[in-house]
Parts: sequence; C-alpha cells; structure tokens
Amino acid sequence: MKDTDKVLLAHGGGGGLSYQLIKDLILPAFEQHPILKELDDAARVSVKNGRLAFSTDSFVVKPMFFPGGDIGKLALCGTINDLAMVGAKPMYISVAFIIEEGLSLKTLGKVIESMEKVARLTGVQVVTGDTKVVEKGSLDQLFINTAGIGSIDDDLDISSSNAKVGDNIIMSGTIGDHGIAVLSQREGFEFQGNLLSDCAPLNHLVSRMTEKTKNIHVLRDPTRGGVASALNEIALQSGVEILLKEAKIPIKEEVRAACEMLGLDPLHIPSEGRLVAFVSEEDAGSVIETMREDPLGKDASIVGQVVSQGNSRVLLETIIGAKRILTLPKGELLPRIC
Amino acid sequence: MKDTDKVLLAHGGGGGLSYQLIKDLILPAFEQHPILKELDDAARVSVKNGRLAFSTDSFVVKPMFFPGGDIGKLALCGTINDLAMVGAKPMYISVAFIIEEGLSLKTLGKVIESMEKVARLTGVQVVTGDTKVVEKGSLDQLFINTAGIGSIDDDLDISSSNAKVGDNIIMSGTIGDHGIAVLSQREGFEFQGNLLSDCAPLNHLVSRMTEKTKNIHVLRDPTRGGVASALNEIALQSGVEILLKEAKIPIKEEVRAACEMLGLDPLHIPSEGRLVAFVSEEDAGSVIETMREDPLGKDASIVGQVVSQGNSRVLLETIIGAKRILTLPKGELLPRIC
Repeated sequence: MKDTDKVLLAHGGGGGLSYQLIKDLILPAFEQHPILKELDDAARVSVKNGRLAFSTDSFVVKPMFFPGGDIGKLALCGTINDLAMVGAKPMYISVAFIIEEGLSLKTLGKVIESMEKVARLTGVQVVTGDTKVVEKGSLDQLFINTAGIGSIDDDLDISSSNAKVGDNIIMSGTIGDHGIAVLSQREGFEFQGNLLSDCAPLNHLVSRMTEKTKNIHVLRDPTRGGVASALNEIALQSGVEILLKEAKIPIKEEVRAACEMLGLDPLHIPSEGRLVAFVSEEDAGSVIETMREDPLGKDASIVGQVVSQGNSRVLLETIIGAKRILTLPKGELLPRIC
Repeated sequence: MKDTDKVLLAHGGGGGLSYQLIKDLILPAFEQHPILKELDDAARVSVKNGRLAFSTDSFVVKPMFFPGGDIGKLALCGTINDLAMVGAKPMYISVAFIIEEGLSLKTLGKVIESMEKVARLTGVQVVTGDTKVVEKGSLDQLFINTAGIGSIDDDLDISSSNAKVGDNIIMSGTIGDHGIAVLSQREGFEFQGNLLSDCAPLNHLVSRMTEKTKNIHVLRDPTRGGVASALNEIALQSGVEILLKEAKIPIKEEVRAACEMLGLDPLHIPSEGRLVAFVSEEDAGSVIETMREDPLGKDASIVGQVVSQGNSRVLLETIIGAKRILTLPKGELLPRIC
C-alpha cells in the first residue's frame, strides 16, 4: 500500500479488491481478534449467560479527527458505553464502514488503528464487519456503524425507566468537553487552553460501580442533546421529577466560555466519556468514592436528586437559587458532533 | 405528520424533535416489538443458548425502491440471511438510519413499514436503533445499517471453512435477479418480462434444511460479487477445489439477456434471496427435496461438487464442456446494488 493509495469503488464490490482490503488492511490491524478472521457471513460467538445487552450507533462526526479522538475511537467508545449504560460487560463488537470513493487508505488505516486501541483497552473483541464504498459525492468521507453485545449479571436492573424517588444523581465528570472540542476544530475557533474531547470507554468505571453496589438504578451517557436530553428522557421513562443543581455540575472554564460566546447552553452539549448515575441515597457516598479511584470518575459528584413520582420533568435550580423547568432541547443543536 | 413533511437536522439532534420522530413514526410502526419501546441506551434481551451468531451490514442501494423490494426490506433480509448462513435462528435486530436532511418523512415511513413486514414474517424482533441526520449533500438520501443476533443449535457446524471433498453444491434458485432488477430500475433499461429482485428472508428455508440433516457444511448467500465471489471465498477458506457446472445453474432468461447486452457475467451478479449449500453427497437428495417444498427453494438443484483438497480454486465447466478457472471478480462490478 502506497501513501497515496485511495479507496476505490471496487474495494466495496465484493470481488478481488474487497478481499484484498480485508486481508491487507483490516485483518492485520485486528490480528488479536481471531473470530473476525473466520470471515463467515456472521460471526459465531459464545456467551455464558442468557441476559444480554445489544446496541447500535452510527457515527458521522465532522471532522473525522478532533482534539482527543477521531471517528474510530468514538465509534468503539460509543457502543461500548451504550452497553455499559445498562450494566452490561461489553464483549463483541461489529464494525461497518461506509466510505466515499477516494478516501485515502492511510486515513482509513489510522481510524482502524484507533478502533483497535480501544478494543484492546476495553477487552472487547471485534468479530464481524462490513465495508461499503459509494461514489464520490454520495457521502462525506467516512461514516461508521458499530453494534455490540454485552452480558448482564442477573442481579442488576439498570434502566432509564428505573429511577426512584430519593435517588442521588451522580455526574462522573465535566460536561460538554466533547461537543466544544469538535465544534472548535470544525469551525476553527481558538479557545484559550487546550480542550480535548472527553471521548473514552466507560466499561471499567461501570464495573467498579456495579461491584460496589447493586442499587444503581439508572446509568446514561449524556451524548446528543447533552445532560438536558438525558435527564428529560429519564424523567419521562421513569415518571419522576428530577431536581438538578446547576452549581454542582462540573464544567471546564473553556467549555463555559465557549458556550457563552456561542450562545449555547452547556447542558445541551454532548459528552462522549461521561455518565450520570441514579443511585439510592444510602449508597451514593460509597459509589462516588469508588468512582473517584478511576481516572474517568475523578471529578464525580452529586448534581441532583429524584424528588417525586408522577410529574415527569426536570427542574433546574440555577446558581442564583431560582428554579426553572429544563426542557428537552428544541431545534437543531450541533449537527455531526458524533 | 403532513405528506410534505421532511426530515430536519434536528430530527437527529437528540432533542425534542428526535424524541418526536421516535414516538410518532418509529415506535408505532414497530408496536409489536416491545423491547424497542424501553428506549434504553442498549436493549436488554435474553437467549436460551450460549452459541450465538452476530452479523452486520450497511445498505446503500440506489434507487431506494426497486422492483420486488426497497432498502428497508433489503436491510432486514440482508442481516437475517447472514445469520441464517451459519445456521442461526435470527432473533434480534438493530436498525440504524443515516438520513440526508430533506428526505420526506413519508418515504422514511414507507421504508420502515417494509422492515416491519419482514420482521413479522420472519419472527425477528427489532430491539434497538439509532437515527442520524446529516446536512444536505453529505449523503445520498438514506443509508441503513442493521445488525443481528441469532442462536445456533449445538449440533450444527456451518462455516465457509467447512467444505469437504465430495460435498454436493446446491443452488436454491435462479441467480442474479436482484442485481439486474436494481440495475434496470436505476439505469432505466426496459427488459422484456417483469423481472423482480429475489430479495427475501432465507431463515425459514434454512430451518427446513437443518431439520432434515446436520450434514450441511457450508451455506452462503451470493450477494456482492455473486456466485463467483461466494464460491471462491469458500474455496479459499476451506482449502478445496470446487467444480461448478454452468449448464446446471438456474438463471432466468431476462437475466441472461440483460447480462449479454451489458457485457456482464451472470456469475458476478448479486442475489439477495438465494443460497448455495454444501451438503454431504448422501444427504443432498433429501435436502433438495425439502428445499423444493419451500417457495424460496422451488428451483433448488445441484450445480457442482467439491472435487479435491489442497488446491483452493473454482473450476467452471462451461456449457460446451470446456473447463476454465473462475476467479474472484476483478475491478468494479455493480456499485450500490445492496
């Protein structure tokens, strides 16, 4: 492969070049992933336990490379995190590329390398995949879909519909880093500091938490629509009223400044390596303690509480002590941020 | 929803409109799919058996609607068939839409309806999904990714690397109908007759076959790259030499005529509802008999045999009795045919 080699339509055609792309670029990168090498129409995998989590996400982030990550890292972390958000241990991942004709093979190789790195770090196996190539102009460079399977321990019941009155709401870290990092890169803004996306796999953090207590009721990563969407969806699905305290929410100065300048609400900005957890009050302290032992949970803190049943809404107590309803974000937020 | 309503960027933004799209369009269509309604980051599903198949495919077919099917039907059948090709019973499916801003909601609704129809017919549950919307010009209308999970009975061992000397090769029906039907629609060719895509779910046909005998060694659906790619990949993965008899391959007159006119080799043209099966010689007769009882297997016939070990190649015995090597197709075949 030369540095200038590009993806051709024939790389997705199912013939000789498709086979070569798989043999020369994809399989060598994933050589620690033996099931992938079997190249059957479907991967054959085994699970020890009958309770599984299954999730999928497509990634269309623009630009493909941003401070703190790229579309490959994001695509692995995104699905791994979705699995972790129901308490599952991620096991198997599928990777499907849709590529615009003309993309450099070197760029594709870099993205694959990022994916492999996350897989190694998280102990997840890439077992099956697909590559489609479309004509120039029919897609902007590269989109990736991942789907994943994880196993759920029998004694866990973590769901967005499981929030209970009295639950403490824990935020694992600062909000909005990912959204502002991508936006800055895309629009060429230069904010002070060196803001990186928070994009990271949360499965190890979640394992620590579920080992500490089974009284975790809800986990959610505030991606598209940010904390505002995540909490509103939980309020709707659980039928509860949530009180969120603005002053308690960890937020980086660069993110706050960028949001002020751009007229954005930090509560709408996506993170890709953070979670909110709803934990029974008596367990919240020990859960925070264990979270803080993990680099991805070092800023963990209680940001709110479930206050009552029946009234599905989120109340925001602002820094000056006023209360307002925090609604689902309206209109277009940040296109192609993940 | 009005007939003229279009998909907006905000439908993919994770805010209020995203929620509305899911509540108003997607969930009502899939009302028989209760797990989908839970709207967690990952679906929680259960399997009775520890051996699973896992597969993914993206669909970029152009045009979206073609004689005999559409991108929605294709997206469900494609993944269901990939699961069936390792002998799995398809159980759970994920659906991820990537939509170009401006697509009509009515069109999206039609595609979803097709998907639901296939799900109902096959007994597969749609349990999780994702919707991304990208700016006009960043994608051609609508691409869909599906991933799926199926369970594999313990006594089956069906894999492309499992072909054995003496195996009979059975083709379930005519080849190339899908490719020529899509191509004709796209390019505005009018061939005589009324050629429809063969796009169909093969899981029930495969169940019949695996109930009849456990001596099915390989199953493969000849999609991209057609029969030529499918057989070459099996030859490579199993390390065997395959003899294919051209005169025995079922092919519709319209497909043959179109291929002649366009200078295409019918063995390169994809089908989306056909399979090749490698079955031990003593069971081939009874497998064909049971296949013929199914509408999707009514034209089943023996088209070749595995002749020796060690020489990974496919020999084609032509209609006039000459033999030539049938290679993996070279160059671009048919872009965006699936």
